[in-house]
Amino acid sequence: MAQDKGCGASLCQCFFEYETPKILKIRSRKVGTVNRLIQAVIIAYVIGYVYVLKRGYQDTDSVLSSVTTKVKGIALTNSSDLGLRIWDVADYVIPPQEDSSFFVLTNLIITPNQTQTRCPEVPSPSSLCTSDSDCTKGFKDMRGNGVRTGKCVKYSDTIKTCEVLAWCPLEIDREPPEPPMLADAENFTVLIKNNIRYPKFNFNKRNILPHINKTYLTQCIYNATTDPDCPIFKLKDIVEGAKEDFQTMAVHGGVMGIQIRWDCDLDMPTSWCVPKYTFRRLDNKDPENTVAPGYNFRFAKYYKSGDDVETRTLIKGFGIRFDVMVFGKAGKFSIVPMLLNIGAGLALLGLVTVVCDWIVLTFMTKRNQYKVEKFSYVDEFKLLSQE
Amino acid sequence: MAQDKGCGASLCQCFFEYETPKILKIRSRKVGTVNRLIQAVIIAYVIGYVYVLKRGYQDTDSVLSSVTTKVKGIALTNSSDLGLRIWDVADYVIPPQEDSSFFVLTNLIITPNQTQTRCPEVPSPSSLCTSDSDCTKGFKDMRGNGVRTGKCVKYSDTIKTCEVLAWCPLEIDREPPEPPMLADAENFTVLIKNNIRYPKFNFNKRNILPHINKTYLTQCIYNATTDPDCPIFKLKDIVEGAKEDFQTMAVHGGVMGIQIRWDCDLDMPTSWCVPKYTFRRLDNKDPENTVAPGYNFRFAKYYKSGDDVETRTLIKGFGIRFDVMVFGKAGKFSIVPMLLNIGAGLALLGLVTVVCDWIVLTFMTKRNQYKVEKFSYVDEFKLLSQE
Amino acid sequence: MAQDKGCGASLCQCFFEYETPKILKIRSRKVGTVNRLIQAVIIAYVIGYVYVLKRGYQDTDSVLSSVTTKVKGIALTNSSDLGLRIWDVADYVIPPQEDSSFFVLTNLIITPNQTQTRCPEVPSPSSLCTSDSDCTKGFKDMRGNGVRTGKCVKYSDTIKTCEVLAWCPLEIDREPPEPPMLADAENFTVLIKNNIRYPKFNFNKRNILPHINKTYLTQCIYNATTDPDCPIFKLKDIVEGAKEDFQTMAVHGGVMGIQIRWDCDLDMPTSWCVPKYTFRRLDNKDPENTVAPGYNFRFAKYYKSGDDVETRTLIKGFGIRFDVMVFGKAGKFSIVPMLLNIGAGLALLGLVTVVCDWIVLTFMTKRNQYKVEKFSYVDEFKLLSQE
Repeated sequence: MAQDKGCGASLCQCFFEYETPKILKIRSRKVGTVNRLIQAVIIAYVIGYVYVLKRGYQDTDSVLSSVTTKVKGIALTNSSDLGLRIWDVADYVIPPQEDSSFFVLTNLIITPNQTQTRCPEVPSPSSLCTSDSDCTKGFKDMRGNGVRTGKCVKYSDTIKTCEVLAWCPLEIDREPPEPPMLADAENFTVLIKNNIRYPKFNFNKRNILPHINKTYLTQCIYNATTDPDCPIFKLKDIVEGAKEDFQTMAVHGGVMGIQIRWDCDLDMPTSWCVPKYTFRRLDNKDPENTVAPGYNFRFAKYYKSGDDVETRTLIKGFGIRFDVMVFGKAGKFSIVPMLLNIGAGLALLGLVTVVCDWIVLTFMTKRNQYKVEKFSYVDEFKLLSQE
Repeated sequence: MAQDKGCGASLCQCFFEYETPKILKIRSRKVGTVNRLIQAVIIAYVIGYVYVLKRGYQDTDSVLSSVTTKVKGIALTNSSDLGLRIWDVADYVIPPQEDSSFFVLTNLIITPNQTQTRCPEVPSPSSLCTSDSDCTKGFKDMRGNGVRTGKCVKYSDTIKTCEVLAWCPLEIDREPPEPPMLADAENFTVLIKNNIRYPKFNFNKRNILPHINKTYLTQCIYNATTDPDCPIFKLKDIVEGAKEDFQTMAVHGGVMGIQIRWDCDLDMPTSWCVPKYTFRRLDNKDPENTVAPGYNFRFAKYYKSGDDVETRTLIKGFGIRFDVMVFGKAGKFSIVPMLLNIGAGLALLGLVTVVCDWIVLTFMTKRNQYKVEKFSYVDEFKLLSQE
Repeated sequence: MAQDKGCGASLCQCFFEYETPKILKIRSRKVGTVNRLIQAVIIAYVIGYVYVLKRGYQDTDSVLSSVTTKVKGIALTNSSDLGLRIWDVADYVIPPQEDSSFFVLTNLIITPNQTQTRCPEVPSPSSLCTSDSDCTKGFKDMRGNGVRTGKCVKYSDTIKTCEVLAWCPLEIDREPPEPPMLADAENFTVLIKNNIRYPKFNFNKRNILPHINKTYLTQCIYNATTDPDCPIFKLKDIVEGAKEDFQTMAVHGGVMGIQIRWDCDLDMPTSWCVPKYTFRRLDNKDPENTVAPGYNFRFAKYYKSGDDVETRTLIKGFGIRFDVMVFGKAGKFSIVPMLLNIGAGLALLGLVTVVCDWIVLTFMTKRNQYKVEKFSYVDEFKLLSQE
């Protein structure tokens, strides 16, 4: 064996030098079996988990999406305030267009003919009064409806409340009607148009699949088993798809999620890349914790009467907000992630030696023979004593 | 060479023990060249791909963004229904404010003076009738406009249809006007204010860059080559930037994406971190698959006439929804990702040995000499026979 | 030592073959100490950074969220245009419902009783004229308010401007009132209902925590120290939480971010998973760069007078848009990421040898003895000469 002065001896010699570890080969049934077993487990993991399940040989991209919706349907209400009244899409979708979301009015408390004037406040612990001195002029109760004028006036035969400057008559705070006013809303349909894009792969698709024609689109209704490709949904089906009852939900309102999942393997034919719809109630309907249930908001329609006085119709609208949420991941063969995963797999194979060495040197009966062969020693203390 | 009893012999001795693999150095032109070549490839990959392209020495963060928009412009329409009429921003942006999105009305079908009353349904296969018995009282056709009263009445001189309770007169379902009513919309401008934040680096910036002054902002229009920093866009330019024709798109409406990309290397001067604008049509305009094209919705303006009867003007509005989408990634030098990437690079260098060993032991003419030097053997079977 | 013909000799023998590197054990105080020190650093890093800080033994998931908001409060304004007027939620929240966002009107410029007619344009360099020839008929100034009729008419006693067909009288472009009209908005409250979901762990929670009851909810106001769980916020507190002044911000409007962070360790009791609220101004208020400050938009209320003429009230509304942004990451123990991180940690331990070898073979006084023991040589040139 040649004495060596290190790489400094000759740069050229050093360049052509190749280092490889010296290997001890042990031929043993036990160790060999353990070794091959662990190798098999790691190879199976790399192939099974990384390549088959996670598709580690693919580059991935997240979905970009654009959603438009169009609700159709007619509801008839018959109330003492309004008489017989027809509600169409321009009446019950508020606001008329939103991005990836739409709201359908299902129930309402209506307070017509409000004007800016004075009236007694709705009775509450803080608004009840016996004389004018109980009502501070200019005081704005943050949970009240107006600004106090300083007077205490009759609300009913028995009750006196502070007078307020407000939109009068005031809305009476009461539970929403049951059954809901627009119970017909369960039969409304919504056409959801969803275009997606995977920018990295320059791949576009929409949920109106190529085989869908105009005739089918005018009469189909989505059904998970019979019509899974139809982009028209009955509102009742959406709510029932989340295991909720439409009429119960319609009373106080709520928030529904329409989840569209586009998981695409772009190494396969693109016709395999189709959307999957699932439905989920997004707000809480925990029956034993009913603080602030449902979804409602107030809005008004403003009118001007002949003598230029502004009046408004206040509507406390209860309804269901449908949020369309689009998820998805696409994968396509790419050389870089494949190499990275092969590298990581090979690195894992290095762990086999660590585990087998531990077994060989700890449990085998011949461990001392193996140690003699595997290890050499340089002992600083001995080296010093040799000098 | 000292016999060893393992680490148990002396804890102190064991603590100072350092294990290093025994190495065989092969000096060979062929193997050495292959070895250095593979090393060079891996080092080039680590430096080139990980450090230069992916900037592996940087910590990264995703953008947080806030967008507000303001449209300006005036359109003039001249129709038989409305006569000469001016449309300004309060008329054509619906709803008046949205988050990261705005809608501009470009075309419309208007049905004025609707009231809640009875009128013959629009002719369709299901609404045509010859006698009252064809019209079920109370039936709501989900694709119709109202609730049937049970009567069959004259729609025109030749056609009879079922009478409905609805907002009458009904909207006549027809193709939108061509050219679009608000053809002037192509000259509208929109000011997009976009503030971004990289929270990890506490870095804020907005798309109105520091060098932009009030004078420039009152007269500039974005142009990719001459005015790439101006945050005011002409709607026509946005649509043409996506290789679409504004007037064609305006007829049926559609959805446009305004993409703002903020890719910032925060190791560089912050003035290099500027937004890049790109435009893309988000909905499908596939000419051979025109089911449900464009983007439209219905909304109404409600009035009350002198005798307290509610009337409304129904508008089927076609238009373009512009979605502002902000993307971005910022990187800044950080010690942890740099160490991680150096470690991963060194781990890759370990693969060199695997490849070279395979070459040396398989293809080299002197492979048997190498094997003798590289490998030692312990043979369980032989060991047993020696006993 | 047995001569070997490689694995081809016997497949069975090959199967039971186990390769392990030959190791040189160096017993040295210096090298041993360096070795253990580096090992300690790497183990401390793996345990400290990967396991404790980054919780590498957990699988993680990103939050899905649904937000609804409800504003309450009354404002009183007293202006020459409108007289005493009460504003309630239906008046000042525009549009009445949005997804994860709400806008509160704080200031306004009102232009009542506009009709489609002719009037002199607002004076500006391009609208001033001396005779009809200065005004091109049909010209639409993109920063003007209407279409020119071709006439030059008196705007005031001293100024003449081009006549336009527009919604007249025109809005006078002026600075918004200071103090803001709806200064009372600072006392408005907003109830934010936020339901979150970690789909991978099937974990749902909402920000109205289980211990909150109806009584508490009717009277609590969020306060970072005294009431951190109350989901009702005073608008003034939100703005001040971002170190801004409400009354100043209310004049020109702006955009506020309400950030809700749900960072949950699901290995811990679920009651530890609570939202954290932070507030931040999202638009720019850089005082020395005040191009296009604040947030405002125009909207109109439409009326029809007795003789069927449409009039409108144009409102330039300034206000604060509140964007509710929900962030969060949940982690839960999982075997796969734990194994991956243990593997990565062991791989890092391999770097110890690289560093120590470099130290041993470069700086140690006995480096040549070590080299003799560690390295063997095969020299191609020598091999050739031996033949």
